[in-house]
Amino acid sequence: MIIVLKPHSTPEQIQHVLERIEALGFMPHVSQGVARTIIGVIGDEDQLRAEPLQAIDGVETVLPILKPFKLASREFHQADTVVEVKGIRIGGGHLAMIAGPCAIEGEAILMEIAEQVQKAGANILRGGAFKPRTSPYSFQGMGEDGLKILKATGERFGMPVVTEVMDPRQIDLVVRYTDMIQIGARNMQNFDLLKEIGRTRTPVLLKRGLSATVKDLLMSAEYVLSQGNRQVILCERGVKSFEDSTRNMLDLASVPNVKAQSHLPMIVDPSHATGRRDLIPAMALASVAAGADGVHIEVHSCPEQARSDGPQALLPDQYARLMDQIRPLAELLGRKIDVCEGVSV
Amino acid sequence: MIIVLKPHSTPEQIQHVLERIEALGFMPHVSQGVARTIIGVIGDEDQLRAEPLQAIDGVETVLPILKPFKLASREFHQADTVVEVKGIRIGGGHLAMIAGPCAIEGEAILMEIAEQVQKAGANILRGGAFKPRTSPYSFQGMGEDGLKILKATGERFGMPVVTEVMDPRQIDLVVRYTDMIQIGARNMQNFDLLKEIGRTRTPVLLKRGLSATVKDLLMSAEYVLSQGNRQVILCERGVKSFEDSTRNMLDLASVPNVKAQSHLPMIVDPSHATGRRDLIPAMALASVAAGADGVHIEVHSCPEQARSDGPQALLPDQYARLMDQIRPLAELLGRKIDVCEGVSV
Amino acid sequence: MIIVLKPHSTPEQIQHVLERIEALGFMPHVSQGVARTIIGVIGDEDQLRAEPLQAIDGVETVLPILKPFKLASREFHQADTVVEVKGIRIGGGHLAMIAGPCAIEGEAILMEIAEQVQKAGANILRGGAFKPRTSPYSFQGMGEDGLKILKATGERFGMPVVTEVMDPRQIDLVVRYTDMIQIGARNMQNFDLLKEIGRTRTPVLLKRGLSATVKDLLMSAEYVLSQGNRQVILCERGVKSFEDSTRNMLDLASVPNVKAQSHLPMIVDPSHATGRRDLIPAMALASVAAGADGVHIEVHSCPEQARSDGPQALLPDQYARLMDQIRPLAELLGRKIDVCEGVSV
Amino acid sequence: MIIVLKPHSTPEQIQHVLERIEALGFMPHVSQGVARTIIGVIGDEDQLRAEPLQAIDGVETVLPILKPFKLASREFHQADTVVEVKGIRIGGGHLAMIAGPCAIEGEAILMEIAEQVQKAGANILRGGAFKPRTSPYSFQGMGEDGLKILKATGERFGMPVVTEVMDPRQIDLVVRYTDMIQIGARNMQNFDLLKEIGRTRTPVLLKRGLSATVKDLLMSAEYVLSQGNRQVILCERGVKSFEDSTRNMLDLASVPNVKAQSHLPMIVDPSHATGRRDLIPAMALASVAAGADGVHIEVHSCPEQARSDGPQALLPDQYARLMDQIRPLAELLGRKIDVCEGVSV
Repeated sequence: MIIVLKPHSTPEQIQHVLERIEALGFMPHVSQGVARTIIGVIGDEDQLRAEPLQAIDGVETVLPILKPFKLASREFHQADTVVEVKGIRIGGGHLAMIAGPCAIEGEAILMEIAEQVQKAGANILRGGAFKPRTSPYSFQGMGEDGLKILKATGERFGMPVVTEVMDPRQIDLVVRYTDMIQIGARNMQNFDLLKEIGRTRTPVLLKRGLSATVKDLLMSAEYVLSQGNRQVILCERGVKSFEDSTRNMLDLASVPNVKAQSHLPMIVDPSHATGRRDLIPAMALASVAAGADGVHIEVHSCPEQARSDGPQALLPDQYARLMDQIRPLAELLGRKIDVCEGVSV
Repeated sequence: MIIVLKPHSTPEQIQHVLERIEALGFMPHVSQGVARTIIGVIGDEDQLRAEPLQAIDGVETVLPILKPFKLASREFHQADTVVEVKGIRIGGGHLAMIAGPCAIEGEAILMEIAEQVQKAGANILRGGAFKPRTSPYSFQGMGEDGLKILKATGERFGMPVVTEVMDPRQIDLVVRYTDMIQIGARNMQNFDLLKEIGRTRTPVLLKRGLSATVKDLLMSAEYVLSQGNRQVILCERGVKSFEDSTRNMLDLASVPNVKAQSHLPMIVDPSHATGRRDLIPAMALASVAAGADGVHIEVHSCPEQARSDGPQALLPDQYARLMDQIRPLAELLGRKIDVCEGVSV
Repeated sequence: MIIVLKPHSTPEQIQHVLERIEALGFMPHVSQGVARTIIGVIGDEDQLRAEPLQAIDGVETVLPILKPFKLASREFHQADTVVEVKGIRIGGGHLAMIAGPCAIEGEAILMEIAEQVQKAGANILRGGAFKPRTSPYSFQGMGEDGLKILKATGERFGMPVVTEVMDPRQIDLVVRYTDMIQIGARNMQNFDLLKEIGRTRTPVLLKRGLSATVKDLLMSAEYVLSQGNRQVILCERGVKSFEDSTRNMLDLASVPNVKAQSHLPMIVDPSHATGRRDLIPAMALASVAAGADGVHIEVHSCPEQARSDGPQALLPDQYARLMDQIRPLAELLGRKIDVCEGVSV
Repeated sequence: MIIVLKPHSTPEQIQHVLERIEALGFMPHVSQGVARTIIGVIGDEDQLRAEPLQAIDGVETVLPILKPFKLASREFHQADTVVEVKGIRIGGGHLAMIAGPCAIEGEAILMEIAEQVQKAGANILRGGAFKPRTSPYSFQGMGEDGLKILKATGERFGMPVVTEVMDPRQIDLVVRYTDMIQIGARNMQNFDLLKEIGRTRTPVLLKRGLSATVKDLLMSAEYVLSQGNRQVILCERGVKSFEDSTRNMLDLASVPNVKAQSHLPMIVDPSHATGRRDLIPAMALASVAAGADGVHIEVHSCPEQARSDGPQALLPDQYARLMDQIRPLAELLGRKIDVCEGVSV
């Protein structure tokens, strides 16, 4: 950690800073420049970080040197983590192809969609039972009934299933019915939820918050990892911006950015990132080319009757055409797409 | 609601849209322009909003006309809402002066701070017992022990107290010890938490999320209001931006913006908004001048030993000097600052 | 254009709006709803747009229906525009591979870089002679001397050259030495510069401004097009955001977004977009997969001695390896990369 | 300047960095930590900044210590700069009250507006003769004819006048007719324009760019100052954000933020910042309370016939009422508002 003092700091101020650092059990190194005095501090940066050195009189800036996350970092774990969800591998060259409707709306419609996306090559089925809706008057999801439908549908087509959890009190229930738990963008910094999910051993799909930096995302992953659950998959899904022709701004550079710093797999959700059906195929292909470990796409067989987010869902045949483009691209790039076992088609 | 069709939409497409609208029980009005066909739909917009009209083939845009919030709107309730927290009024010309440390760290230090801020004119005491920290390795708050200290301190100085709640499972506990519940920025769209707090009758301080629009904030207030709790106070505390010399960007225009649309009181938190002690006084004065119903400021008697957010806390004497500036300003503008009863100083 | 009146607008207000519209020579259609009165206006939207209807008393919102750009739109020109720069085609399936140093620093170094990037497959050479630098104390470019070096180098390796122009007074000079003119991000809304360049017949590389929406970018293209210069190539180069680990945020979805609305070619600059050498290759591949008509990459044979933007430049051998990855990807996607004629290697 | 090396950097890499620094004529100080090696460099930081140290192999981060601007900094000039525009003082406790229409549209209308704002207390008249419009098809301003009207009107009412310049070729012309030159937000980083205006001795009103940080704004001021023109007034006018209910986001904290670092006066433009007439008064009052050296407000006697930006203009009587609120506020805060001489009322 480096402490930069204000210009014209007095010897008393400098002395006071040095005493504080030594009192905390660290060793300061002073460098006297013409314009500024700089103090380097050697020691456990985590412990130092907890200390409000910035607030000491005479201090201009405190510059941390080390990354604040540990278990999520490449320095801690060099090789790519491969998460396995009921036989489907994600990471280390294996792509997750997650597809399904935004919300679970009934058994018949979910079965219909699942059959089509699985046939097209999707290897994980998604569907929301608890929906985070901006308006209290919008459809809030089918709850446990939805979870039952999701589980039955997944089993019928041999697909692992993933669904979102929003409340720590729902975790026990959701874990019973699903193979992977999604933490949505709005809950990326719901720290109690992160901790509780960290105590389970179910794979976690952690979506980036709408105004979270890459570092924030990795810190949230650290919350889950630090509780013992090492099955974390990150998901870029766009962030808030001034651009008003798309729902969010897809920060695709976050994929190589995360991979340079972390061993965790990272997928991309072009449906939420753009909010526009017409942009999804191009962004899905770009995601695979950028090195993402999968794509998460909303598919609905009748978007105009979908009870949530219809405009950003592909039709099943659009999804099938997209998968026909993704497959040769993945092959060119040396990536594999696991196929669901027990396919009944 | 207005539906704009794509250019060159076919008569079949237009017919299909009309049928969908009528099937939903609404009446469409068609306007045929040279370049576009436009359909006005008369009926309950809330119900229409739930329908994915945007996803219908041939539809270019769906333009809602009415605001999506009801109970929070000025149209629903014309007069300013005045929330009363243990005798301290907020809204309708009455200013909340909320002050205290970021985190509760012990009884002696909280008593010391409370005594000084109350003497300076603060009328509500704040302190965090459950802390949302970016890192799992940072101090997470004292929990119930902290709540007990907060309650005792508030009673000692005749000040109502407010503390943050992050998890629906903490609500019962927190309600027992505090007079107002804070929903932090990171939980502004934690909808399960909003609903649970909506079921209590404790006043709520709802902070704007880091990437929430003014409309999003009002929709989150609507979640609380729709469950029956009408004691909602909004709080602007800055949003994320590209500016890197302040922690967040204080969107002060949100104050008159909210007040034009809603009857709810709105205060400002310049501590979190700027993250810089030196900018707090100017922004506190500006908040009052902009029409805010109060200011929320972190105060710590020894920021360099604070276990959380030291650099953005004022010293007690800085707070006292600021209050000495706020008082004549409030008076000039015809605003009142209620004084805590039973002051023991 | 649709005009939504405020709730409870009086018959007099409605009458006044109708009179204003008729006075402007347009025909209004009134729709009386329960909560709002809506007026549709048929006529030339451009003319209407110029009128401050929003400012009329009683008007809540004015909703334009048509896009504000014409010559840049797909509706005006359905087929992809293919721009030809000295034999190198850009657009309609042809990829521009623009490479070179940020700034021209001397003949020897530019010749060295040009030889290597051309050998690797670059088909246009870039280099700045006038540099927009944040600080007045930074290197501002070699000016005309630099232009001479650029021209000589391009001719030596059979490559068309592109350079940035910042001031309308430089245009005559720059046009004499280069094959394509770049308008930098900071000048995207320098409207006098756009107009002057629109009067030339030199191909233009128009970069997206740091806070420009896709619509703003297309409006700036419209400025150039409306003066008669139809050789416009757009360039996504990242926008400002809160993410602090990259220089800008690459909005890759702007590529399919623009292509859905406009016939103009669009390339991507991952160097400026990320500001990080390690992220450039992944983003270049993603750009091609997303449908971009080329990539613009800074290459320097000794980035640590570059006088501008060293950290975001690839080394020549890194560029060659990237081109070896781009070529099979382009082939898979049915895209072509024109080769410079007269290659002397 | 501090250079942080990557973890596990080799002795050869460290040696190479040290040699580069010494070759540049600076003295490096090495600190060997457990996890990182850090090198402090003593010497002229400006010169170092120009060097691409970041690009050297093995370097993780380069942390500048000093601010990149000099002439604009408080360290260079401690006392507040007071700019005098034809007798009207701005800065150091003196408030500029700039008012007038967005665009000059004719003599009669400008005379009418000027008379009313001057009577209300405005002390500088604004009006655009060259208009930066997003669309090439919108009204582009009256040019020199407008300048003549502006000058005549200013003289008629004893008010100094300010107008925007967009092109270096217009400067000579504009300087002849006006008392202060405005550089608009879109041209804040039009560096050639900044340099040319720096060569004049006319006071400059420099508006913050739509995505400029506070540091960027001060660097642009440095461009003007470094050419010899020391009469620079900064203007906060809102920046781009995700909030869609206002035109821009007013970053009012930039006022105390700039004043902590710079001696230059800073005013606020709530018209462009919000784009909404109903929010202007609250934001104007907040600006004065925040310490701004003036406010810049658009006023039009018939906004619905204004040829540009009608919705964000106050009516003359609204402006007069606002001035009646600003005056006692300014007095309370110890600020003065100079009155135009030769007032004809």
